[in-house]
Amino acid sequence: MSHPLFERHRATLDRALEAIAGRGYWTPYPESPSPKVYGDGAAEKGKAAFDALLGRPFALNQPATVGTVGSERSPFGPALGITYPKADQNGLLAAVETAQARWRRAGPEAWVGVSIEILKRINEASFEIAHAVMHTTGQAFVMAFQAGGPHAQDRGLEAVAYAWDEMRRIPAHAQWEKPQGRGEPLRMSKRFRIVPRGIALVIGCSTFPTWNGYPGLFASLATGNAVIVKPHPAAILPLALTVRIAREVLAEAGFDPNVVTLVAHEAGDDTVQALALRPEVKLIDFTGSTANGRWLEEHARQALVFTEKAGVNQVIVDSTSDYQGMLKNLAFSLTLYSGQMCTAPQNLYVPKGGIDTPERHVGFDEFASDLAQAVGRLTEDPARAVEVLGAVTGDAVLRRLEAARSFGAIALDTRALTPPAWPEARVHTPLIVKLARGDRATYLNEWFGPISFVIATDGTDDSLAIARDAVASHGALTLSVYSSHDGVIAKAIDVAEDSGVALSINLTGGVFVNQSAAFSDFHGTGANPAANAALTDAAYVAGRFRVVQHRMHI
Amino acid sequence: MSHPLFERHRATLDRALEAIAGRGYWTPYPESPSPKVYGDGAAEKGKAAFDALLGRPFALNQPATVGTVGSERSPFGPALGITYPKADQNGLLAAVETAQARWRRAGPEAWVGVSIEILKRINEASFEIAHAVMHTTGQAFVMAFQAGGPHAQDRGLEAVAYAWDEMRRIPAHAQWEKPQGRGEPLRMSKRFRIVPRGIALVIGCSTFPTWNGYPGLFASLATGNAVIVKPHPAAILPLALTVRIAREVLAEAGFDPNVVTLVAHEAGDDTVQALALRPEVKLIDFTGSTANGRWLEEHARQALVFTEKAGVNQVIVDSTSDYQGMLKNLAFSLTLYSGQMCTAPQNLYVPKGGIDTPERHVGFDEFASDLAQAVGRLTEDPARAVEVLGAVTGDAVLRRLEAARSFGAIALDTRALTPPAWPEARVHTPLIVKLARGDRATYLNEWFGPISFVIATDGTDDSLAIARDAVASHGALTLSVYSSHDGVIAKAIDVAEDSGVALSINLTGGVFVNQSAAFSDFHGTGANPAANAALTDAAYVAGRFRVVQHRMHI
Repeated sequence: MSHPLFERHRATLDRALEAIAGRGYWTPYPESPSPKVYGDGAAEKGKAAFDALLGRPFALNQPATVGTVGSERSPFGPALGITYPKADQNGLLAAVETAQARWRRAGPEAWVGVSIEILKRINEASFEIAHAVMHTTGQAFVMAFQAGGPHAQDRGLEAVAYAWDEMRRIPAHAQWEKPQGRGEPLRMSKRFRIVPRGIALVIGCSTFPTWNGYPGLFASLATGNAVIVKPHPAAILPLALTVRIAREVLAEAGFDPNVVTLVAHEAGDDTVQALALRPEVKLIDFTGSTANGRWLEEHARQALVFTEKAGVNQVIVDSTSDYQGMLKNLAFSLTLYSGQMCTAPQNLYVPKGGIDTPERHVGFDEFASDLAQAVGRLTEDPARAVEVLGAVTGDAVLRRLEAARSFGAIALDTRALTPPAWPEARVHTPLIVKLARGDRATYLNEWFGPISFVIATDGTDDSLAIARDAVASHGALTLSVYSSHDGVIAKAIDVAEDSGVALSINLTGGVFVNQSAAFSDFHGTGANPAANAALTDAAYVAGRFRVVQHRMHI
Repeated sequence: MSHPLFERHRATLDRALEAIAGRGYWTPYPESPSPKVYGDGAAEKGKAAFDALLGRPFALNQPATVGTVGSERSPFGPALGITYPKADQNGLLAAVETAQARWRRAGPEAWVGVSIEILKRINEASFEIAHAVMHTTGQAFVMAFQAGGPHAQDRGLEAVAYAWDEMRRIPAHAQWEKPQGRGEPLRMSKRFRIVPRGIALVIGCSTFPTWNGYPGLFASLATGNAVIVKPHPAAILPLALTVRIAREVLAEAGFDPNVVTLVAHEAGDDTVQALALRPEVKLIDFTGSTANGRWLEEHARQALVFTEKAGVNQVIVDSTSDYQGMLKNLAFSLTLYSGQMCTAPQNLYVPKGGIDTPERHVGFDEFASDLAQAVGRLTEDPARAVEVLGAVTGDAVLRRLEAARSFGAIALDTRALTPPAWPEARVHTPLIVKLARGDRATYLNEWFGPISFVIATDGTDDSLAIARDAVASHGALTLSVYSSHDGVIAKAIDVAEDSGVALSINLTGGVFVNQSAAFSDFHGTGANPAANAALTDAAYVAGRFRVVQHRMHI
């Protein structure tokens, strides 16, 4: 009982299955926005499509619509002026249940085929979506294109591949023949049906609406669940475009488009709380604050809840065989998207006695000042700086930035930039503050934004001990270590494995601790408080469907 | 980094992997207690070993012991007189954590190899364990041997196979090479380490301590978690023997035996509540009442909680092409182990207008009386009846049995039997009561024990509708249908798949709805309130471990 879309994308799926088995490098969606890759005029067409969205109601033919919502403003300046259909929850859920009734019977091949077709169409809309991501999240264009486009699509396909990999292992049929001594064996025919869990809810975040949203969306859709997408009020557009594409593909494939729906809402209302507690909602994927994530875990007991929450990412600086490479790498990690990444490092632990480098011994203060200079160089020219920094998402970041200036001696102060291309953009360079190891009450909180701390420890063993405790009690998505000593590396690996956080070792080149590559790097471990799941592994998909069998004698 | 025990059991593991992929018939542990299978004298040796346990402290060299507990009484008569070490929880958990620190580093091959070796030794002790199961649960000997021995071992190995199947898919190492246009590619070496979740708690039940206990025990152990086994106060011995064997194997393999420990306790104390909420406990497997299962789901938030709770199992009788076969099959299902199985049918829905059979149309009352006769024949001779009925577990069953006699017209009354071999045994034949479709408040509760209801419905569509609602709102582990019409079978399959319950169709021979075979039948679906997981699938094992990676440039 295959499906034409499954056959069409079979080769992509097979290659994705190979990729998750080997976890080497692979992507089907090129990250380069070059016309050589996406075709002449693709960039212009995408920009035009985005421009055409501005200042008008977003066309999304959804049932149970009662008025409109939407007040997104670009961190680069202008209000988008786009409104979205506002959903009546009872009406929408009724329509979703109707759509779900047929979708759940379509079977794994249809679910997977439709999912990959949706991803392909999303990929074709990468430029339009990139502008949508840029002007809702504040990411610079190239990052918005890559992280919000192909890299997010990779994560979506990865989830589909894991879903298929689990579902394909359930045989559709088995013949069971139990010997009975000299008598005739008992013979039964058994059929195993994969059934989805129910309706899934995806709760998007304001910084990476697609990258963090696609894994849950596609893991649930590819296992037969209808999906309601609830974007962050500040970043609706990228997911609205996604939902529109999904609905088009569903309708073309002969399914009710209400298998995928959008629930846009204004900040501060009770939409999420009401939706998350609906008995029909059986799966929730959430990315956002610890408070909201915990609320869901605590209250949405009818659903399987996957959360990615806040954490404190750390760098242990012990020694290095490439001091300049280390500084450059760290400076970029601190600067990229103004530190507004759940993977960006915040705390750098440096022995108060300093560190060894090939050239010389570098003291603690000297390291802080060298790092400040490296960041300073990267952010000197506003026109170039904005291409790395992007813009700050909201006022909360600016308030934290101001507050953090008083925490200790400032190694690098933040500056507001006015990039010529975006004179109204909120662009602020990173702040680096020096702290003592005793300032735990400060540095063991997440200070989301372009804020980092260089912390003087009693030595590398002390740094490792602080890092271990911090992961276990506060959570983290990344840990990084710099050392030219194998013994220190081994200890850092132990800390990472004991506390349950991914470790990057001696990054001095073109790979950054903030980056995690689909099909290869697991994002999050599920083993510390920052996230209760990893993107993506078997545990992330296996519970999204169930198997119901029937048996009879032959 | 293989392990000698992994190599020793490699062939068994490979065959088990084949079995779970195909889900046909397979078992490595023969269910026949014949001397031809288990060897001359095996039965006698097992009986002697069991007898030697009676009336004395159970030898289990466990740390942090403070006194003894234990007051098991055989449902066949005598008190066992066995006492078990009582654990000081703080002391025991400290010892478990110490043991766990090394176990977690041993890796999947060691975890799996040790687990299968434990199962092999348990299999060798099947006769001793059978007597232990018989004299704690009240199962008749052959059933205690089969369900408590080889069938439980099958379920344990099945869990190990699923665990390995998930773990083997994580590559230990990957090389990641990302092209950089004309430049040198970015090259990284990545290592993926499987880490267990923490300490696991297995909470045993009084009726199937091993069959329901082994899946969780072995799923957790084979994924590197230390396991604390907390048996039901009425059925400690089967799990105490299990734990002792596990500790022996662990010690022989050079591990700290405290990787597997026993916490025996008296009924009514707060041992479970205290243990289940310990922050060190990250996994809980529970079989028992709905109230206790819900308490765990609600409160043990630090752990992943797998529960099997109460449900209402149902039979839809529409028509049959083998009336006598159907009656015999149903009679055995109602009689086996006095209905004290989570899979035993309770509600039989029969159209008030009767059913078609090849010989004649059978009216509702006639069906009830024919079924009563079939059960009556099976339980006529006390000496033979006890071999099917076993004994009743406790006073609660007897109270329910008495209460149910007043619910409606009695089709078959219960009788107390005095089997010659066990004059003191609590043996009671099944009660069958006729009810109207309106008596929902009665028949939609679980009446655990030898209690069943024949319920007059408005017709088969009505029966199906009642069954569908009951599964969705009250939970069920089994559903059974008898019909000679393909259309009815198709509708029953829809009901089963929509409500999420395993369906048996037209069982008229030697397979009974109460039975589920490891490696082939999924026990529970996780899709209705009776259980939040299935034994065993990927979802049951995938979350018991996590993957922690580290990466560095090559």
